[in-house]
Amino acid sequence: MHKQNKLMVLTNPKLAEAAAIIEKAIAERRTLIIAGKCQVRYTGRAKSTLEPGERILIIKEDGSLLVHRPFGYEPVNWQPSGSIFHIQTKAEAIEVHAVRQKPRENVRVIFNEVLMVSAISLNDSGEFSLHASEKEMHRAILAKPSLLEDGFTPISYEKKVEPGFVDVYGVDKNGKLVVVEVKRKTAGKEAVLQLAKYIDAIKGKAERELRGVLVAPSLGNDVQRLLVTLGLEFKALDPKKCAKVLKEDRNAKLETFFKVDS
Amino acid sequence: MHKQNKLMVLTNPKLAEAAAIIEKAIAERRTLIIAGKCQVRYTGRAKSTLEPGERILIIKEDGSLLVHRPFGYEPVNWQPSGSIFHIQTKAEAIEVHAVRQKPRENVRVIFNEVLMVSAISLNDSGEFSLHASEKEMHRAILAKPSLLEDGFTPISYEKKVEPGFVDVYGVDKNGKLVVVEVKRKTAGKEAVLQLAKYIDAIKGKAERELRGVLVAPSLGNDVQRLLVTLGLEFKALDPKKCAKVLKEDRNAKLETFFKVDS
Repeated sequence: MHKQNKLMVLTNPKLAEAAAIIEKAIAERRTLIIAGKCQVRYTGRAKSTLEPGERILIIKEDGSLLVHRPFGYEPVNWQPSGSIFHIQTKAEAIEVHAVRQKPRENVRVIFNEVLMVSAISLNDSGEFSLHASEKEMHRAILAKPSLLEDGFTPISYEKKVEPGFVDVYGVDKNGKLVVVEVKRKTAGKEAVLQLAKYIDAIKGKAERELRGVLVAPSLGNDVQRLLVTLGLEFKALDPKKCAKVLKEDRNAKLETFFKVDS
Repeated sequence: MHKQNKLMVLTNPKLAEAAAIIEKAIAERRTLIIAGKCQVRYTGRAKSTLEPGERILIIKEDGSLLVHRPFGYEPVNWQPSGSIFHIQTKAEAIEVHAVRQKPRENVRVIFNEVLMVSAISLNDSGEFSLHASEKEMHRAILAKPSLLEDGFTPISYEKKVEPGFVDVYGVDKNGKLVVVEVKRKTAGKEAVLQLAKYIDAIKGKAERELRGVLVAPSLGNDVQRLLVTLGLEFKALDPKKCAKVLKEDRNAKLETFFKVDS
């Protein structure tokens, strides 16, 4: 047994030894990793059972729980943070019971054999930054059109319009057609002329009034006059904000599944 | 160092020792768990960086990768199965580089310190079964209305209609109003009479023609005549099929995020 303040690891422990580490780790809010033979039962919005096999159980310091099989990137069972744990040691098994109150959900992981148990105090305050590409910026505008302006309704994106592809186009609150060109860095002369070309190409065909909007984190000083002369508009949009919108959108989708019956 | 055929664990190893285990584990397709101080860089559809901190890296035998912080049930970075790994040992760091080909995505996890590394051969063929509740069955029909019948369009669900709540109601392809009563076990007399009551309650108010459909895995033999006499219909639907639809629907939502730019 390796025991330090930061790290405790037991390999092939007896069940009673493993249970002692598990209880201590949960009480001390350490990250717990258990590899062993277990079965899993879930009751809550639905019911699931996982027949015995060797898996990894992770319980984090915030009370979130993950059961991972040796394949696939998704956990087979999980609980979000805030779960409350009950450890029960029986003659031939350890039951780790995670209870979530709202909605009421129970995950029971029953180990018959523990290959490894480790309790680690992890110190992690590093910042996570997500930066969007131009395509991600298109998607963010589609997911949340108010990023462009209130009342904007996207119709299509990455649509072929000679001489290339229009990034996003749609209709504004007054019914005008809006052609959007997106850049992830400061927009220069080239971006302005590119948008102007699309507007020219569409003008002949469109029956509605047309607006061209250049979207970028900032606009080069030297092109503001050109933009105005060509009758185009500029909207400042930070790629980081787009990344955040997409991340929340993705979480929202996950949460749709998790919380719909709560 | 504990070394067995099934399990290798090193605590506080030197970087070169850790790198040797990591390479061996990936070559032998073992499940690899590393706890240590690392930073993470992702490039692909977007870009992300995770500043240094202590985390857990899991690489599974199928090449899927997860980076977990000590909080939250979601991984901060991940790659799906099929990733290819390159391990590079430098003077002060180990770089674990996971490459996915289509779409091209790179996750680089750079460890400056390894607290624990373990390589385990996990044997897991246990079956996972998911069973839906009646509420889950409602949701499955809403997610995939063709489970009821082609052309069915749900309008509402769990709607209050004295003497209780109608499970699902909608409109069929011919414009008739459809009232759906769902049971997760064999439907008996009580279920038939319950549906009949809802139909009676709605009949006076509805301006359209009405249909009542009882949905359950099976219909009791003794109630088929009653059903016909009351002018009601039966549709067989297995709760397990509903659970599967919901699971796929959830995966689809995840995949929407993951794959939209591929």
